[in-house]
Amino acid sequence: MSYVDLYQLFDTESSTYTYILVDSATKDSIVIDSVFEKVERDLGLIQELDLKLVYCLETHIHADHITGADEIRKRTGAKVAVARAANIGCADILLDDGQDLIFGKSHLKAIATPGHTNSCMSYYLESSTRRMVFTGDTLLIRTCGRTDFQQGSSEKLFQSVHEKLYGLPDDTIVYPGHDYRGFTSSSIAVEKKLNARLSKDQSLEGFKKIMAGLNLAMPKKINEAVPANMSCGRINSKT
Amino acid sequence: MSYVDLYQLFDTESSTYTYILVDSATKDSIVIDSVFEKVERDLGLIQELDLKLVYCLETHIHADHITGADEIRKRTGAKVAVARAANIGCADILLDDGQDLIFGKSHLKAIATPGHTNSCMSYYLESSTRRMVFTGDTLLIRTCGRTDFQQGSSEKLFQSVHEKLYGLPDDTIVYPGHDYRGFTSSSIAVEKKLNARLSKDQSLEGFKKIMAGLNLAMPKKINEAVPANMSCGRINSKT
Repeated sequence: MSYVDLYQLFDTESSTYTYILVDSATKDSIVIDSVFEKVERDLGLIQELDLKLVYCLETHIHADHITGADEIRKRTGAKVAVARAANIGCADILLDDGQDLIFGKSHLKAIATPGHTNSCMSYYLESSTRRMVFTGDTLLIRTCGRTDFQQGSSEKLFQSVHEKLYGLPDDTIVYPGHDYRGFTSSSIAVEKKLNARLSKDQSLEGFKKIMAGLNLAMPKKINEAVPANMSCGRINSKT
Repeated sequence: MSYVDLYQLFDTESSTYTYILVDSATKDSIVIDSVFEKVERDLGLIQELDLKLVYCLETHIHADHITGADEIRKRTGAKVAVARAANIGCADILLDDGQDLIFGKSHLKAIATPGHTNSCMSYYLESSTRRMVFTGDTLLIRTCGRTDFQQGSSEKLFQSVHEKLYGLPDDTIVYPGHDYRGFTSSSIAVEKKLNARLSKDQSLEGFKKIMAGLNLAMPKKINEAVPANMSCGRINSKT
């Protein structure tokens, strides 16, 4: 098992985390959830570290920001990969539950975790020194993504977290898609215990009730972001 | 050597990173560079994880935000520790170069790294799985803190970085005091190679020229922050 370097990058505008994972043996790399406005920053890092970007992954079709996937693909040759359930034509690879993504001597496992949207994927990695899971909006620190649009389902999200993510080793570090309080990571053990909506003790009925009562406004960028992200971030005015 | 959990927390207002280190064996913990406005968040985390806070450390007397040290001390009993060179009366412990801070079965070494201010301390930790250094404003990602106030010295900063921080193992993760581009960490190897001001190839004369030409405005909060931080963040109007 080779060593993986992780770069966690934050976009203050949308509070989105972008992750770049590097296989130290070969410098083959993966980017997860890039942000269009931050593509120059991310490509700058890729270039200065002399990385070979293999995959550009999405945890889901985002509603709050536009992905940089297509732009990064154009400029690096990386393959864009999203869940098959996203049903989009712009991706190079459509991922199924359990699929392995090889980069150098490392690999990342796609875990289907629908609920926030119908096509949410989490990504799990074991390196020689640590286990980590990139949970997108399925599991956030002490909370979770909403389930009231994009084929969201509270029942599915509950199952994804309890049956899949909570089945990972307790010491797995949780790297979320967003955080709005300045937190950068958590762990499976801590979320099982302390997640306000999804602790181990929470029932499905209790969770559904919480989610049904959220009464959230629509994300400001949803009408722009979802169509753009269905095209992997390819925007007419920006290409 | 026991395992250390790290929580990295971001304040978007001042772009400051606060760190909470936890000895997993005993839950004895250390906070580095708290921010006054984020004390409730940090104490909330400490409480929900059932941590025993032992030390409240500062990397230096900050000019851009007010520390939460005194408030955290009052509410947890943690000892406030700063460099002896800061010459302040409010601290419980005055740190010298090389001093060890024990928490549970782990320990953190204080490394005097003056230059940004005369009392900058970095903190180095080796756990069973990784090495990390908390560099305050001495070494930032690809850059460094300014040296034009608070007894700053470009020559001292250059020496602190080249002779002390760059003497740490290459795979040591660098956790900075701030980042303004959304980066969360780097490594000694990467900074040696890529730091725009302080790469291994940069000469002292070249560095001094860069720093002398920065021409920066004063931090907005300097007149409020420095006196407050000389009192460990104890502010009359806030106590």
